[in-house]
Amino acid sequence: MRSRGILIVVSGFAGTGKGTLMKKLLEYYDTYALSVSATTRAPRPGEEEGVSYFFVSKEKFEDMIERDELLEYACYVGNYYGTPKSYVEEQLEKGKDVILEIEIQGALKIKEKFPDALLLFVVPPSAEELEERLKGRGTETSDVIAKRLSRAAEEAEGIEKYDYIVMNDELERCTEELHGIIRAAHYTPSRKSDFINRLRTELKAFAKGE
Amino acid sequence: MRSRGILIVVSGFAGTGKGTLMKKLLEYYDTYALSVSATTRAPRPGEEEGVSYFFVSKEKFEDMIERDELLEYACYVGNYYGTPKSYVEEQLEKGKDVILEIEIQGALKIKEKFPDALLLFVVPPSAEELEERLKGRGTETSDVIAKRLSRAAEEAEGIEKYDYIVMNDELERCTEELHGIIRAAHYTPSRKSDFINRLRTELKAFAKGE
Repeated sequence: MRSRGILIVVSGFAGTGKGTLMKKLLEYYDTYALSVSATTRAPRPGEEEGVSYFFVSKEKFEDMIERDELLEYACYVGNYYGTPKSYVEEQLEKGKDVILEIEIQGALKIKEKFPDALLLFVVPPSAEELEERLKGRGTETSDVIAKRLSRAAEEAEGIEKYDYIVMNDELERCTEELHGIIRAAHYTPSRKSDFINRLRTELKAFAKGE
Repeated sequence: MRSRGILIVVSGFAGTGKGTLMKKLLEYYDTYALSVSATTRAPRPGEEEGVSYFFVSKEKFEDMIERDELLEYACYVGNYYGTPKSYVEEQLEKGKDVILEIEIQGALKIKEKFPDALLLFVVPPSAEELEERLKGRGTETSDVIAKRLSRAAEEAEGIEKYDYIVMNDELERCTEELHGIIRAAHYTPSRKSDFINRLRTELKAFAKGE
């Protein structure tokens, strides 16, 4: 029997390549499932229902809040974004490690509700490298880049609340590091409690010569 | 610059193959150093000074206690056993992950003094398997085996105090698991604090457009 999966939260500054890392993890290993968020914002060209997001109406979203059907949610620029519970729960039950890619406030809310969740923060090798990557996209004005860096500086204040910090200097190496960290988390006593209890009962019986 | 190594404590019931696991880790990776204990008991045939143990007199050992030169020590059957600080400290400074193979009481003392130490517990797949292994040695009477199992049953009560539980069902796999867990521990925020602080300072400077 496969044991229950781990709820994994991945955060990181814009431009650190979180999205690509998650894609690699899902491509290389069949032990992961990516959580899909619900949002009230309109789909952008190329975004697919149930893959990019679940696109729902404001009424439907508020109904989900009301029914406690979201693990966490937040409102940005007039639109709701949230993590539907049911899919996550179903995948964890199947033994999949479920990845939520969310920002720091949402991550901390998840940790409060689910202390056993694993919080990972992806960082660039340096601020210079981050700026290079943001510039390299070629789509942002220098004003937007300055805002992103300023936001990164703010977000950096909360890094210690995460369980692990991973530097994305090289995609393949970083993917393996993330995978290694998540594998290791399966060996904590709280995630091995069934096994420990069984072993204890057995040892007591054997010690008595039963 | 290599960052400081991690102090690793490995415990496990007699017969779980800890010793062999440690040998494999040291054989496969050059990132580890094995701590050598000091003891007042007499060397057994084949035991080497500075490899198996540092063999010292009772006076010398009590002198080491007096001077606070031991990380932890204990007394068994009239003999002292302890971990000299200097070697461990030197290796950690060099960036080596230093492994102490000690029993549960010593392990908990280490964790108290060094909360950042990583405590690993090696378990057999089952009590039956443990009994088989103890019998398989062919050197123990059934009375000794019963005592070992009874001791294992007692020790099992403290397992939750360890950071990770690793099952030694297959030597090579278990060696890789241990290595993976230790690698992962290098990515906790407390062990990345220098990097985090540097990144923060840089980000603030970049955000200000400096």
